[in-house]
Amino acid sequence: MPNPLITLTTDFGLSDHFVGVMKGVIAGIAPKARIIDICHHIAAYNVAEAAFVISEASPYFPKGTIHVVVVDPGVGSSRRPLLSEAGGHFFLAPDNGVLSMVFDAARHTVRVISNPRMMRREISRTFHGRDVFAPAAAHLAKGVKPPVFGKLIHDAIRIDVAANASIGGSSWRGSILKADGFGNLITSFPIAQFTGINTRPFEVRVGREKIHRLALNYAETELGEIFVIVGSSGHLEIATNQASAAERLGCSAGAPVELELY
Amino acid sequence: MPNPLITLTTDFGLSDHFVGVMKGVIAGIAPKARIIDICHHIAAYNVAEAAFVISEASPYFPKGTIHVVVVDPGVGSSRRPLLSEAGGHFFLAPDNGVLSMVFDAARHTVRVISNPRMMRREISRTFHGRDVFAPAAAHLAKGVKPPVFGKLIHDAIRIDVAANASIGGSSWRGSILKADGFGNLITSFPIAQFTGINTRPFEVRVGREKIHRLALNYAETELGEIFVIVGSSGHLEIATNQASAAERLGCSAGAPVELELY
Amino acid sequence: MPNPLITLTTDFGLSDHFVGVMKGVIAGIAPKARIIDICHHIAAYNVAEAAFVISEASPYFPKGTIHVVVVDPGVGSSRRPLLSEAGGHFFLAPDNGVLSMVFDAARHTVRVISNPRMMRREISRTFHGRDVFAPAAAHLAKGVKPPVFGKLIHDAIRIDVAANASIGGSSWRGSILKADGFGNLITSFPIAQFTGINTRPFEVRVGREKIHRLALNYAETELGEIFVIVGSSGHLEIATNQASAAERLGCSAGAPVELELY
Repeated sequence: MPNPLITLTTDFGLSDHFVGVMKGVIAGIAPKARIIDICHHIAAYNVAEAAFVISEASPYFPKGTIHVVVVDPGVGSSRRPLLSEAGGHFFLAPDNGVLSMVFDAARHTVRVISNPRMMRREISRTFHGRDVFAPAAAHLAKGVKPPVFGKLIHDAIRIDVAANASIGGSSWRGSILKADGFGNLITSFPIAQFTGINTRPFEVRVGREKIHRLALNYAETELGEIFVIVGSSGHLEIATNQASAAERLGCSAGAPVELELY
Repeated sequence: MPNPLITLTTDFGLSDHFVGVMKGVIAGIAPKARIIDICHHIAAYNVAEAAFVISEASPYFPKGTIHVVVVDPGVGSSRRPLLSEAGGHFFLAPDNGVLSMVFDAARHTVRVISNPRMMRREISRTFHGRDVFAPAAAHLAKGVKPPVFGKLIHDAIRIDVAANASIGGSSWRGSILKADGFGNLITSFPIAQFTGINTRPFEVRVGREKIHRLALNYAETELGEIFVIVGSSGHLEIATNQASAAERLGCSAGAPVELELY
Repeated sequence: MPNPLITLTTDFGLSDHFVGVMKGVIAGIAPKARIIDICHHIAAYNVAEAAFVISEASPYFPKGTIHVVVVDPGVGSSRRPLLSEAGGHFFLAPDNGVLSMVFDAARHTVRVISNPRMMRREISRTFHGRDVFAPAAAHLAKGVKPPVFGKLIHDAIRIDVAANASIGGSSWRGSILKADGFGNLITSFPIAQFTGINTRPFEVRVGREKIHRLALNYAETELGEIFVIVGSSGHLEIATNQASAAERLGCSAGAPVELELY
């Protein structure tokens, strides 16, 4: 049963009225639905970053939450709009791989949204956030059942968010998934597989830097020091105390990272 | 009958507490009113941009929505605060032309907000968003009738958002209304009057560029190509695939645009 | 009795999902609580700026509002999380002085949040906004009584937001508390003690500039002119008409200001 709670994740930014217009469309269909912004500053057209963000953020919302993800370089082409149920949540997004990490983490079903009664009457070629995804999310919040939206499919597009990753053994390869607003670099190395690092010496290589220090919290480090830390994201992060590691290392999303355990 | 749904459009940005304070004032008067941000990144003091944004965004909200627009270079002077009904919506804004495009599009009435009981007790000289417009919107959301706010007027200020525009025939003149966050340039040329372009060759001139290509969607274009597209705004837009047309052309809001139909 | 209205003030910015995640945690515990953002663009780790912003903004919210303030350079160390009642509002924040101006302004009590049932089960070392403050605020909004959170303390940390301030007499010293988004410089000089300036000549010195003009509103000044104005904040502000005083004077938060009354 969907919760009348809708989240929004887009690359629209906040300098325009696009996000507000999506909320207006939702309010017109489902006046009681609550709307929470997860993030509108995904880098433009960056499907991999959005894939990471929605998989990170969605588990903190209550079961039944409806998550709308619109990072959509193929808008207006034949790429399909999707409605998925995964891990007790609902996801509406274009079929471009943006739900890959959500699908990796939980059993899921996927439907194509094809019922025109779940969309606005006129569909523009450039703004399906407003014309397809917002109205569909609102109808779902009002209690319309998923089969009404369209048929089940089994060939939704998947992407490798961390390209060529190899995790395990004593030599790991991965990439930076996102530089957060503090300049912390979130790696693709999951903490759960990383606990060995607490007792063995190691080297993390990223950009021009080799890092050997694992910090438990920011307060125990010195201003400007570079270290790895068990981040709030469930991934290993590279950080400096009260400065931007992204700037210091000249790195951003997509940069390769290596880990050597000794 | 006003809907207890209030939208906010300002040039306050989000780096300060100003928008939050307006919401606090509303919550104190009308605890059940819902508040949706349309945009707080209107360029500072840019009345024309706000006029475009509110006329674009407001129709996507349900009838009865209360729209507060505060781009207000004359705050603290004798410029009047207005309450207007137009097209089934309510608008509260300073009398500086910011509602011009809303007035162009629909029958409307306009009142001056003069009843001090609809405002905060103390009115600062620099923040009428907090002291006049937020409380008035909240009282309206609670069901206070428009005549209680003040008298009807017939001389509200109007501005030409697209200066010296001339649309129709084979030679059109207009301007860029807004560069959106993707760098798309939204022109003052309405799509409805523009459909001829689909079958006739044309030239759009803006900045240093001459454009002859009309694209149906982004996906059919090549990376970096410049083209015109029927935007989601109801206006012709100038865009490039996955890059900023505004940067490429060195253009922003206010730049002149010409269209020649052959 | 807490109002089920929660405000958020952080230095997280909006480029990440951190704020959205805090709202998800709140929605899971207290689905009916309303959430209003005050500001998420406090300069990173700037406790003094956050102290000013929350003391400025909170009085505009209704009594019983629950204010969450997370600017927290010591996260993960032994610094304590606090729940305070002050002036009829509730405040949740780290014990680092960020509530100093709230405490200066009103009678208050302070408790340490120590009851693990008011927090998430797992507490990360780097994101107490999500794991401690958001869930505690949600439980408070649902009606849990303050004594359940933890014991009263009397040694909460206080900081001097305006260092070395000296106000009164004919020679005042203070500092810039914040440069707002328009570039106005908000000084630590309270308006209430400043009314003498209306009738006596004066000189304000800040950066490279000496200012002798007091303006009543922006509209009466000339474009580009620098002047002091009785700001909406309850503090004297330094501004220019339709330009950034912060840029013109090369000043930002923390810069010293002097006032001489003749």
